[in-house]
Amino acid sequence: MKPPRLLLVNAFQLSEGAYALRPHDGPREALVMDYANVAHLLADTEWTAHPGARATHGDWPVETREEFLIVGANRVRIVREACESKQYDAIVLLGGGDPGFLECRDIGRRHGIPVTSCAHAQMHLATMLGHRFGVIDISEQHNTQMAQLVVQYRFTEHCVAVRNINHPLPRPTHDGPQSIAEEKARALRGEPSAMLDAAVAAGESAILEDGAETLILGCSAAYWMRPLIEARLREAGWDVPVLEGYSCAIEMARMLLRLGRDASGLAFPSDPPRRWRPRRVV
Amino acid sequence: MKPPRLLLVNAFQLSEGAYALRPHDGPREALVMDYANVAHLLADTEWTAHPGARATHGDWPVETREEFLIVGANRVRIVREACESKQYDAIVLLGGGDPGFLECRDIGRRHGIPVTSCAHAQMHLATMLGHRFGVIDISEQHNTQMAQLVVQYRFTEHCVAVRNINHPLPRPTHDGPQSIAEEKARALRGEPSAMLDAAVAAGESAILEDGAETLILGCSAAYWMRPLIEARLREAGWDVPVLEGYSCAIEMARMLLRLGRDASGLAFPSDPPRRWRPRRVV
Amino acid sequence: MKPPRLLLVNAFQLSEGAYALRPHDGPREALVMDYANVAHLLADTEWTAHPGARATHGDWPVETREEFLIVGANRVRIVREACESKQYDAIVLLGGGDPGFLECRDIGRRHGIPVTSCAHAQMHLATMLGHRFGVIDISEQHNTQMAQLVVQYRFTEHCVAVRNINHPLPRPTHDGPQSIAEEKARALRGEPSAMLDAAVAAGESAILEDGAETLILGCSAAYWMRPLIEARLREAGWDVPVLEGYSCAIEMARMLLRLGRDASGLAFPSDPPRRWRPRRVV
Amino acid sequence: MKPPRLLLVNAFQLSEGAYALRPHDGPREALVMDYANVAHLLADTEWTAHPGARATHGDWPVETREEFLIVGANRVRIVREACESKQYDAIVLLGGGDPGFLECRDIGRRHGIPVTSCAHAQMHLATMLGHRFGVIDISEQHNTQMAQLVVQYRFTEHCVAVRNINHPLPRPTHDGPQSIAEEKARALRGEPSAMLDAAVAAGESAILEDGAETLILGCSAAYWMRPLIEARLREAGWDVPVLEGYSCAIEMARMLLRLGRDASGLAFPSDPPRRWRPRRVV
Amino acid sequence: MKPPRLLLVNAFQLSEGAYALRPHDGPREALVMDYANVAHLLADTEWTAHPGARATHGDWPVETREEFLIVGANRVRIVREACESKQYDAIVLLGGGDPGFLECRDIGRRHGIPVTSCAHAQMHLATMLGHRFGVIDISEQHNTQMAQLVVQYRFTEHCVAVRNINHPLPRPTHDGPQSIAEEKARALRGEPSAMLDAAVAAGESAILEDGAETLILGCSAAYWMRPLIEARLREAGWDVPVLEGYSCAIEMARMLLRLGRDASGLAFPSDPPRRWRPRRVV
Amino acid sequence: MKPPRLLLVNAFQLSEGAYALRPHDGPREALVMDYANVAHLLADTEWTAHPGARATHGDWPVETREEFLIVGANRVRIVREACESKQYDAIVLLGGGDPGFLECRDIGRRHGIPVTSCAHAQMHLATMLGHRFGVIDISEQHNTQMAQLVVQYRFTEHCVAVRNINHPLPRPTHDGPQSIAEEKARALRGEPSAMLDAAVAAGESAILEDGAETLILGCSAAYWMRPLIEARLREAGWDVPVLEGYSCAIEMARMLLRLGRDASGLAFPSDPPRRWRPRRVV
Repeated sequence: MKPPRLLLVNAFQLSEGAYALRPHDGPREALVMDYANVAHLLADTEWTAHPGARATHGDWPVETREEFLIVGANRVRIVREACESKQYDAIVLLGGGDPGFLECRDIGRRHGIPVTSCAHAQMHLATMLGHRFGVIDISEQHNTQMAQLVVQYRFTEHCVAVRNINHPLPRPTHDGPQSIAEEKARALRGEPSAMLDAAVAAGESAILEDGAETLILGCSAAYWMRPLIEARLREAGWDVPVLEGYSCAIEMARMLLRLGRDASGLAFPSDPPRRWRPRRVV
Repeated sequence: MKPPRLLLVNAFQLSEGAYALRPHDGPREALVMDYANVAHLLADTEWTAHPGARATHGDWPVETREEFLIVGANRVRIVREACESKQYDAIVLLGGGDPGFLECRDIGRRHGIPVTSCAHAQMHLATMLGHRFGVIDISEQHNTQMAQLVVQYRFTEHCVAVRNINHPLPRPTHDGPQSIAEEKARALRGEPSAMLDAAVAAGESAILEDGAETLILGCSAAYWMRPLIEARLREAGWDVPVLEGYSCAIEMARMLLRLGRDASGLAFPSDPPRRWRPRRVV
Repeated sequence: MKPPRLLLVNAFQLSEGAYALRPHDGPREALVMDYANVAHLLADTEWTAHPGARATHGDWPVETREEFLIVGANRVRIVREACESKQYDAIVLLGGGDPGFLECRDIGRRHGIPVTSCAHAQMHLATMLGHRFGVIDISEQHNTQMAQLVVQYRFTEHCVAVRNINHPLPRPTHDGPQSIAEEKARALRGEPSAMLDAAVAAGESAILEDGAETLILGCSAAYWMRPLIEARLREAGWDVPVLEGYSCAIEMARMLLRLGRDASGLAFPSDPPRRWRPRRVV
Repeated sequence: MKPPRLLLVNAFQLSEGAYALRPHDGPREALVMDYANVAHLLADTEWTAHPGARATHGDWPVETREEFLIVGANRVRIVREACESKQYDAIVLLGGGDPGFLECRDIGRRHGIPVTSCAHAQMHLATMLGHRFGVIDISEQHNTQMAQLVVQYRFTEHCVAVRNINHPLPRPTHDGPQSIAEEKARALRGEPSAMLDAAVAAGESAILEDGAETLILGCSAAYWMRPLIEARLREAGWDVPVLEGYSCAIEMARMLLRLGRDASGLAFPSDPPRRWRPRRVV
Repeated sequence: MKPPRLLLVNAFQLSEGAYALRPHDGPREALVMDYANVAHLLADTEWTAHPGARATHGDWPVETREEFLIVGANRVRIVREACESKQYDAIVLLGGGDPGFLECRDIGRRHGIPVTSCAHAQMHLATMLGHRFGVIDISEQHNTQMAQLVVQYRFTEHCVAVRNINHPLPRPTHDGPQSIAEEKARALRGEPSAMLDAAVAAGESAILEDGAETLILGCSAAYWMRPLIEARLREAGWDVPVLEGYSCAIEMARMLLRLGRDASGLAFPSDPPRRWRPRRVV
Repeated sequence: MKPPRLLLVNAFQLSEGAYALRPHDGPREALVMDYANVAHLLADTEWTAHPGARATHGDWPVETREEFLIVGANRVRIVREACESKQYDAIVLLGGGDPGFLECRDIGRRHGIPVTSCAHAQMHLATMLGHRFGVIDISEQHNTQMAQLVVQYRFTEHCVAVRNINHPLPRPTHDGPQSIAEEKARALRGEPSAMLDAAVAAGESAILEDGAETLILGCSAAYWMRPLIEARLREAGWDVPVLEGYSCAIEMARMLLRLGRDASGLAFPSDPPRRWRPRRVV
């Protein structure tokens, strides 16, 4: 099979310097946060990265329902154009809260192009590995979005809980001392990180108290912790897989492509539909 | 109690003449489709109607996920401004597919203002009257949105099915002979209407085959049929309540107001939250 | 609309002085426990209060299944006569355990009169505000009744738990030192109350451990705590709505009346039914 | 083991001649409808039959929620006295709609005496034989009671549907030509019976359309059909067990007795409880 | 009725001396572990005990999925031969993890012979006594099997949790100090037993934290604790039934026999089926 | 990444000529039924095929629970040896009823080797494409196995129904005229096939009556129909994905391998476990 042509689309683009974790533009490798973690998965593809639509909700990372809605509406246009360009075999939506995913998938379906997204792909992978998963996530606002995705994707039976480690994104409403960027730098230098410690503790609680068999990460700003949490929990005696979204979304796109699939035309009907059903079961 | 000050916000505003069922602007009574059906409920309120944000998805009524997302993002801004204006006690979102509802409710919550919406209010009313409800709706695309709302609002156990009567809205992709405007005109003149017949038949199937105890209507373009379907089914021997969205959303807003409620601050956390929870159950 | 004529019916009537929390008879305001809390909701209605059928299970407040059954059977007759009198637009059943509610609603349905009840109305209101609610209740016996109502009304998915604060009603089998009447007096005087403290702690556990987004109260003898629990939890950082039954049942009756509804004739079929269904889905 | 001393308690007692299917009094064998079907199960017991409490709802068989409530409240007293008499090892409640069952079981629990009932026992037996059962029942009103029991006993996942064969009991509100007594006489004489035919057809629909693996009967006035339905369905190629309530309730009582069990003290707490739980899961 | 002829079949047979808790062969009483606990239930039957098929997975008690599969496949042959011999009215499978149960039941069904098994019978009994049960079990591996049975038998709604007391069976992979045989000996001598203490603590946690209303035991090597746990919990104030598998499986077999039942021919279709269904609901 | 080394293991091996659809031995391509359909997916792997363990249940294809158990126990040994050989990166179990899958996965987990299987992989893929899937399967016996897998893998919420087209495998108990081998030959020659017609009709019923959004095939003897059913349904206006097991199992293995995953160590604990959990949620 020919190497798949993937388009990776970020959730939104802020102005230069507005967000410490992800540059607002640059070479494709710079646009994929924590690129090193997925480089081997992209190596045998032809891939392109899109910085995301320019943010219209404000110049800060999204956390509230309102912000997710607005950046989702913006991203839809990028995906529509990408589909119409016929330059891509599959589209991978980056970002933990999946803004605009179902809508983008609808568009992809009409072009026969699989569209995958980080939370959605993680949840599917997680349930392949065990029945119940726990979500480790960063803030009350973002938890709300993750919980909403669990419901929308119908994983309520599988999701034991969303564990909040309370490290919100840098935003006007966040005035606490917690800084994900600093925590990440510290942890990657091998120094103690309160954020990582909280995530490991949340993971252990998810296993012992909630019954999680797999862990997934909520916000993409927390994905860098994946191997670190997994290693720490393994040391503690737990053989628990910890997932992050980019790798899952990339590989789910590849699998769908290889199987010649994108989405069911009955779950994502074309417009107009070729045929209509008198009765829809929810 | 003082009469509540309500703002009714349409889902979107098309250009003049683009949509036969609802004028693009005019006096408040003109902006509320089938006003006569709810006039008595608005009589003891101080109410205002907003024509909706100017549509940016195209100049036709919305049916697809993508279109609902875009008009939802547009409506959010109107609701935010209305909340900030302090001129309203409650906000009622008009339109059957509830674009932007949860996001608007989030905003309302931060201002202590209840926000209600048509599908959401109908589903709550329906389950007050009986355990299971059926949805009568107009097209494959719109069914998809209604089904998604059922999941998102967590009424899957209550919703027996979405019954499609296949009368799509006037849109570029709709090239069939079905015209809701014509059907409505015919039915209101007392002439036979294929759309109404289909809705009555769908209602009876929902009762006999699906086990519905209450019926709700999906698209607001079908709300005019409410009393007609109910009467026809009553003649056929079925004492089944048939609901439509405007009245339910208006009265749910009133009830919340009288009880001094808008939404739970734990389901719709403020930003930043006053306090955070380490664990969220989905 | 004309002011609705409401009949409020107590769950049972004890002999004079048998129950400290509610007089056995008197003016209508005396028959509505904690009248001040709902006075504003009754102000624009024409309302009457019924002291309840004379108790035949014993001369003490009900807690056991057997007692609820007996007082329920007694109350049914009052509701039947009230419906037949044509003097009321709606009937509100007072009392936390809803004795005889579904049976009374059946009767109301046949007369086109909405009948509402405290636990039932609270559960519906609670799920309008958030997905999951917790119940704060007074004793093992009463918890059993509340749990049974949750099942019967089909709110099992919504109810996170019934939290017991162990302050049983004054009854022959209750020989502990806990006295609700004394606790109430103390709390209303602004003094510390072990019962209120227990309720606040139970509420916080319901939020943090059980995932409650709204709180409702079980026994009507605990309804006086509603504003106090809510205020205390708000101080603790939780924007959690706390509901009590009287106000919810009154406003649900009003909403049903305004919408011209009582109950679905398919959930509460007339006797004999105008038409029968070959198949009933449970 | 000594033969168990069983008390069989009818649901209610009408006046002489008011009900063709069951005499209002007489020798114990006469008080057990279709005695021949369970004679072999009672043979190795010491059993007594109680005609039931004198009906106070009217002088006709019960079908409505209200009637079930009233006869349930009446039956509770008989069970309480029977328990206090210490003359019985177990109590079997006769009648299909289980009036007063949970309340009687509560009383039995306090005396260490198992109490079983017809619908409850059938549902447990049915799920021992297969996962899903269908209910064949006689009328809209009685269906409502059966559906309510399915919910209350928490068999909603197991019950595929209640199939109505529309042969109501003789009651003032029943003015149709259907007579269960005549149908039974006809069928037992080997003549065609419309009621039996309807039940067989309902059974086959339950298998083919609803997915039933076992069938149970709703109203005890339909229990006589058990062997006939089963034989007819076997002829049609279906190896489906058909259950009726008396035998199931008798044998469930025996099994509980042999195992030294009645009911869980946590599901049916004593009054006062020996110990209380801070949290009840529903 | 004639005394039933029961065949009790052990799960597997090890070599002489390989397993301290159950002799590899001997008189029938020796083959039934903790015989004294069920002697009274077998007294009025004609019973035979089979030592089980010779183990082919190794010479140690089973705990892993793989081991359960292998001994299950071996046991099937014994049951088939027993059914064909026409010497037994019912077959009771001994052992906590139910190896080969559904397959044996399939065979029994074809011969009209009820087959019961320990975990399956316990779960049915438990849900007759209360809605929710907890499982007390011995090890991570065995917990996995118990959890799988809960799913397979579709008791997920009823099972609150499997509580692990971490006393694995004697096996090559078990190198810890815990010895069930020694614990049992100690406890039966009235001396303190860490295993029993752990089970009592697990039972109390199941009640207080998980909401269990009945307790069942997982591995048959833990069945000896049944009366001891129940007594200890009763002392602690909990009227909680504790079940073990042998008695439940024996009495369930008796009940099925008396009612003339084995299993539904639609859940366990004959081969070939007498008639086929176009559609199977899961 | 290096091409993965896959071992494909058939479910069982019959004697020469016993089964027309799959040779008992031969080159690897011959051992993979309908090889052409998956050749492109195996092209970039290093793969080996195992003919399956010699059948011990009889010399015919498996359909009953008993037969699946026996061949499952046999296959476990092959997988254990393959894992110990360290020659394979992943193992793909061929065959529709997944005999021995969970047990093999347990073994794979201990060696860090992903093991996938046909029904399991199809169900996961199906739910990636839409929420609800229907199963098209060949016989009452095989339906029973498929239904059991749906439960065991916990897809009950997703599986709308198993549709039976009644074309049993060639077996001693099958004496009907239906021959899958002949139907397949006919259909592949482009001639009418009753089996294919039945499958297409079952698929359309699954869409229209059951609400399926994706279709999967039950028995591997029906996998050849996949592209034919899909094409026929597309012609009929349904954009419904139809899946078969080999391709799904192969690609799921590849995806797991690329992501460095096999299974959760908490769902498939090692023996002995490195650490144990006091409480397991089912």
